[in-house]
Amino acid sequence: MGSLDLSSVDSSSPQREFKPLDPEEFRQHAHKMVDFIADYYKQIETFPVLSQVQPDYLRNRLPGAAPYLPESLDTILTDVTNHIIPGMTHWLSPNFFAFFPATVSTAAFLGEMLCTSFNAVGFNWLASPAATELEIIVMDWLASMLKLPKSFMFSGTGGGVIQNTTSEAILVTLVAARDRVLRAKGTDAIQKLVVYCSDQTHSTFTKAAKLAGISPRNVKSIPTDLDTDFALSPVLLRTVVEADVATGLVPLYVCATVGTTSTTAVDPLEPLADVASEYGMWMHVDAAYGGSACICPEFRHYLDGIDRVDSLSLSPHKWLLCYLDCCCLWVKNPSLLVKALSTDPEYLRNKASESDSVVDFKDWQVGTGRKFKSLRLWFVLRSYGVANLQSHIRSDVRMAKMFEGLVKSDSRFEIVVPRWFSLVCFRLKPLSWSGSGNTEVLNRELLEWVNSSGSVYMTHTIVGGVYLLRFAVGATLTEEHHVVAAWKLIKEGADAVLKGVRN
Amino acid sequence: MGSLDLSSVDSSSPQREFKPLDPEEFRQHAHKMVDFIADYYKQIETFPVLSQVQPDYLRNRLPGAAPYLPESLDTILTDVTNHIIPGMTHWLSPNFFAFFPATVSTAAFLGEMLCTSFNAVGFNWLASPAATELEIIVMDWLASMLKLPKSFMFSGTGGGVIQNTTSEAILVTLVAARDRVLRAKGTDAIQKLVVYCSDQTHSTFTKAAKLAGISPRNVKSIPTDLDTDFALSPVLLRTVVEADVATGLVPLYVCATVGTTSTTAVDPLEPLADVASEYGMWMHVDAAYGGSACICPEFRHYLDGIDRVDSLSLSPHKWLLCYLDCCCLWVKNPSLLVKALSTDPEYLRNKASESDSVVDFKDWQVGTGRKFKSLRLWFVLRSYGVANLQSHIRSDVRMAKMFEGLVKSDSRFEIVVPRWFSLVCFRLKPLSWSGSGNTEVLNRELLEWVNSSGSVYMTHTIVGGVYLLRFAVGATLTEEHHVVAAWKLIKEGADAVLKGVRN
Repeated sequence: MGSLDLSSVDSSSPQREFKPLDPEEFRQHAHKMVDFIADYYKQIETFPVLSQVQPDYLRNRLPGAAPYLPESLDTILTDVTNHIIPGMTHWLSPNFFAFFPATVSTAAFLGEMLCTSFNAVGFNWLASPAATELEIIVMDWLASMLKLPKSFMFSGTGGGVIQNTTSEAILVTLVAARDRVLRAKGTDAIQKLVVYCSDQTHSTFTKAAKLAGISPRNVKSIPTDLDTDFALSPVLLRTVVEADVATGLVPLYVCATVGTTSTTAVDPLEPLADVASEYGMWMHVDAAYGGSACICPEFRHYLDGIDRVDSLSLSPHKWLLCYLDCCCLWVKNPSLLVKALSTDPEYLRNKASESDSVVDFKDWQVGTGRKFKSLRLWFVLRSYGVANLQSHIRSDVRMAKMFEGLVKSDSRFEIVVPRWFSLVCFRLKPLSWSGSGNTEVLNRELLEWVNSSGSVYMTHTIVGGVYLLRFAVGATLTEEHHVVAAWKLIKEGADAVLKGVRN
Repeated sequence: MGSLDLSSVDSSSPQREFKPLDPEEFRQHAHKMVDFIADYYKQIETFPVLSQVQPDYLRNRLPGAAPYLPESLDTILTDVTNHIIPGMTHWLSPNFFAFFPATVSTAAFLGEMLCTSFNAVGFNWLASPAATELEIIVMDWLASMLKLPKSFMFSGTGGGVIQNTTSEAILVTLVAARDRVLRAKGTDAIQKLVVYCSDQTHSTFTKAAKLAGISPRNVKSIPTDLDTDFALSPVLLRTVVEADVATGLVPLYVCATVGTTSTTAVDPLEPLADVASEYGMWMHVDAAYGGSACICPEFRHYLDGIDRVDSLSLSPHKWLLCYLDCCCLWVKNPSLLVKALSTDPEYLRNKASESDSVVDFKDWQVGTGRKFKSLRLWFVLRSYGVANLQSHIRSDVRMAKMFEGLVKSDSRFEIVVPRWFSLVCFRLKPLSWSGSGNTEVLNRELLEWVNSSGSVYMTHTIVGGVYLLRFAVGATLTEEHHVVAAWKLIKEGADAVLKGVRN
């Protein structure tokens, strides 16, 4: 950034000294930013984990228009400290136990810096061969770590691609499945296509189905219950599908989940695949959270039956230390994605693409442009190795088990749903003299009490009509003592809330 | 990353020393990466701009599986230097004149570092108030710079949101428009919906329409020609729409472009809006490239009529120094987006969202999760100020004008389509004794000659049956002497190619 003096601010004369990417200025400013971020990470526990600001807090703190003249980096960083950080909910705080953890690492940060710096737009192979080829290699590496069959690997008959989020992974596979059917039955059949999920499937599935033009009445959400730990029942699925077929509808796609958002339930892949294949449906497995655990042999059984499905997605930004956004999608039949999503404008044509000897990832995704997405995952896999990544998963699970033990040790609480991974679903037990409504109110009050402290952030859900608290262990900086301190705070909250009831 | 000695690699015992985000290690490694990147930028001209590797070059250079044990940063960076960089097409090279430039800056890099470091997942307001509120502010800032009407601003009656790419901006507005009609006419009407574009509209429009379940036969691409500089004709649009209505089809959406990909043609917004409003269509303006220029008063007229349309998208990663991905979308009626895209699962419910006092950007986009996207743009606007950004646009246009002058000075060449922004469309003229086929062959040979040199990278297109060469000025590091050198090379290429013809 060249200095700009007022005399040169003349709309007719370009300021020749403006150099937005001077390497030495870049070096100096980026070093300053590294220190700013490292210091933020060191101090992160001093901030309230859940932001305590009120809506519209920022408008009056910042000017109403962009500045005409440049401002210094120091000025901007001061504003970050004074105005942005107070409005942050600190996802990387070790006291963040809400939603699912969004895990990070130094290696992923470095990979992302490099990805940003290249700014390679790898829509096709030629536009950046390394970007396409490293993605192919890394997707096969991760597939091997997960012991996926060769049918999902480039070294076999399938392949993988990095999407931004699960939403896109579902959307593109849904459209590939849809167009396969419409090619056979004609486009008018779109109104008859039905997709299936459970009432525990992530809401993005319904959204993806809507985006793809599936009639909302044909998105069938199959109820689950506590008896089956909120897993999708193959028997119920078959019943619903049979009834749909009987009325002339066309079963298209079923989405199973390994680790649902509410309670990390695991749908049984093998018997669901039986139903899917019997009715010619595309079966997708959303393992956004739970899939990462399957790099450990002791969790791999949750993917049993994966050889029977059409596609699998898993988000290393959730549990493999990768920062947002990084969702890995593997498909058995990439040509169905390409058939549905390819575009071939003249300005992108080139010999390599036309020779069919290369992969053009633009035809595997929603958009055209794409970054050098594999660098982050490549840096993580190499910097840590499979051994450390397995131990990272195990360490989170161990802390969750510890928390589960603490909950069980207090007779005022109960575990509502079995723990499968590193999420504990619990609540204050119903009081003997109060109705279920009161139990929900008490637990809502407890959550509010805990979250408004700023010391811990948890979230809630409702499954099978039961309001429960979710304690998701896994923020990268969380250590045992954070879990212990969080439990201490929750007990204090329980004391306060229950005291309120007795008074 | 804790050191890992072999004795601790026991799958049953977690390695407690594994700390993937130790702040001091982060600091040390990130400083090293800053220097690596700054050095890359300093050396960037020494690499062939278009990678000269052959398909599958990387597979044999990297191991077939992820390592079990950690590797050092130095090892990985050595591999980047030896194996990745040779396979890169260097988009940031000052000798990159292909496609459209993908512009960058130190300020955007810093903003992106900060965005990554926070790893805030701002799907709703509460999940990171600062992320939502800064995006609201920055989108209004940029709207003001573009002199958009208040109907597109949060401070008025509309609002803006940062999407990843134009593809998503088009998809979400298309679905909002679609569902508005389907709510009135019933979901079965989806087969009757028709969308319109020109034969110059970006291919992602057709892809978005397919994704949204619009029947491929109802994506109407209206021909353009040289006589109207490849702009979409309102007269032709009306004719096609009238014919469709007469057959019972329902006009849904028209996409106009300010700066088409092939030749930067500008569609006339005002008269197209007349047709759109007469037939109740949603009108979108894709100003991915050309829109950025409209921060300069002398280019703003290209957006005349913008008050008449429903939505506008513009990608600061293309011409406002922002790195990928950053696409700004403004809509007049955000509630139509929210109606089409909202999801309300229990686990995301919170008081702020239910009070309707906040914006939840998850309901404005394809996915659920989203990063703190506005930081990059905020850093750019503040670090450079409107004055420098205007001068940056003007400087690129000035260099393109200079190149245009050089082409005109050589009688072997001709400018095929008028230059509007910083793209020059030219070709070797037809030789008097040869047919049009030969002209295309000659120009293809010239392009191949230039690109295989590794010193300059240009691309081509075909419009109105004419094969032409595209010289897009705007890579951030490009200076006048690069343009002059590129022209010198092109002339040498012409000498070689034409000599081949004469022999």
